[in-house]
Amino acid sequence: MRIAVVAPSCPLKPEAAERVQAIVEERGDCELVIHPQCFLSHGHFAGPDEARLSALREVMTDPSVDAVWFARGGYGSNRIAEAALADLPEAARQKTYMGYSDAGFLLAGFYKAGLDVAWGPMPQDVVRSGGDHGVENGVAAINRALDWLVRRDASALEQSLAGPAMAFNLTVLSSLLGTSLEPDFGGVDLLIEEVSEQLYRVDRTMFHVTSSPNVRKAAHIRLGRVSDILANDPEFGRDEAAIVQDWCLRSGIAYGGRADIGHDTRNRVVPFGVRLR
Amino acid sequence: MRIAVVAPSCPLKPEAAERVQAIVEERGDCELVIHPQCFLSHGHFAGPDEARLSALREVMTDPSVDAVWFARGGYGSNRIAEAALADLPEAARQKTYMGYSDAGFLLAGFYKAGLDVAWGPMPQDVVRSGGDHGVENGVAAINRALDWLVRRDASALEQSLAGPAMAFNLTVLSSLLGTSLEPDFGGVDLLIEEVSEQLYRVDRTMFHVTSSPNVRKAAHIRLGRVSDILANDPEFGRDEAAIVQDWCLRSGIAYGGRADIGHDTRNRVVPFGVRLR
Repeated sequence: MRIAVVAPSCPLKPEAAERVQAIVEERGDCELVIHPQCFLSHGHFAGPDEARLSALREVMTDPSVDAVWFARGGYGSNRIAEAALADLPEAARQKTYMGYSDAGFLLAGFYKAGLDVAWGPMPQDVVRSGGDHGVENGVAAINRALDWLVRRDASALEQSLAGPAMAFNLTVLSSLLGTSLEPDFGGVDLLIEEVSEQLYRVDRTMFHVTSSPNVRKAAHIRLGRVSDILANDPEFGRDEAAIVQDWCLRSGIAYGGRADIGHDTRNRVVPFGVRLR
Repeated sequence: MRIAVVAPSCPLKPEAAERVQAIVEERGDCELVIHPQCFLSHGHFAGPDEARLSALREVMTDPSVDAVWFARGGYGSNRIAEAALADLPEAARQKTYMGYSDAGFLLAGFYKAGLDVAWGPMPQDVVRSGGDHGVENGVAAINRALDWLVRRDASALEQSLAGPAMAFNLTVLSSLLGTSLEPDFGGVDLLIEEVSEQLYRVDRTMFHVTSSPNVRKAAHIRLGRVSDILANDPEFGRDEAAIVQDWCLRSGIAYGGRADIGHDTRNRVVPFGVRLR
């Protein structure tokens, strides 16, 4: 099992790369190839669009690579997602792609193109800290992702998946609606999560997302964690669960309860589409 | 000329109401009826959805009201916009509606429904300050709006309008795409502005907006002011004009240069649709 790491959004921290390599060596069940592009820096991004696209296409077209693991989120994968899917070689269809957050642009477009994609922890998560999530949990997140990539270990999955599912950061989902990356949500359990937003923005984004005729074909919307909520002045007046339930009710989408995903080290794996456990 | 003020989003400050009434009295060319709903407070909003909708419908259906002036932005008009347009009485079609920012949800839906709408300063702007915009400029903004509402004074207009136009806050525009409020942008000069966002968000929102097949039918995109830009860590690497021009180029939309609109007291009037000066 050969896993390539590229950074279609923001740069990977060198210490995160080192720690993840150490975990992989200790596991001994896979090989991790961290592309040097991960450490480029160009303004907000891990290198210019051309460099990020070139590295991504390189690992997509390499038949010796079994899985492509997106290094981290941030912002920027949308800028290269459509180009990454042009004239797909057969080798690109023979691997799994994993990431979350900003990588949702790629998960959406790649899934739409028929590739095997999964929402799940990313290498940068190894240094994620804050709240009750220390380095030890960062290691657990990395092992969870690798357990899925290497062994299709069902214990890595979001434990309430009961049919075809997809998972997205809410803002990313909103930003890909109407673009060439938008997949068919028909019959899917749509898991959403959010981070570092004010509640009025969550409400506005839920308005946008649940107004979509495509999203209204989803079987359920399930709510992951909404963390690091920014201050709303005045207090918004209802919490994230009430907001999401309200918009589900208004739009006729069934609310499926909470989901075990989020911008944290407890984040679990959600393979897109049908996945029998 | 009887102008009704309602607050479909957030509450109007009482001191703003007093100052605008004083301006109106000094002008002596119109009557301003500030609905008591403007001063309600319910969490984030100027009263619950029902109260905001009820006040809006009341002034829409009142034949003695010549213009409806949205008190201020903030957030919340999207929650009542669709309901406000249900079973439109004829009286609602005999008036002009003005506002900007969050009121863009109403401008979009109302214009789509055939009503006469205009982007322009709002009552709360009288107390807008900061930067080079003092109280005196707030007064100028109010008079500019009233000059348009009362006298259709062309000096109040954005001075480079050369054909059918619309104006939106960029985030609001992004949030109404795909909803029942989305109007036809075919052949329109689309003026956009933004406030209090990081540049990476502006880039992401431009990706979303310029991916829309409907937006791609616009004659031009023109860029108003992007103010109070929040820190991007690291520096984003290009400014707002470069971002907007980049996405216009990528999407095949003609970039029409800068526009004299924004979240400030210099903000000018943009009547939606065809408007010969």
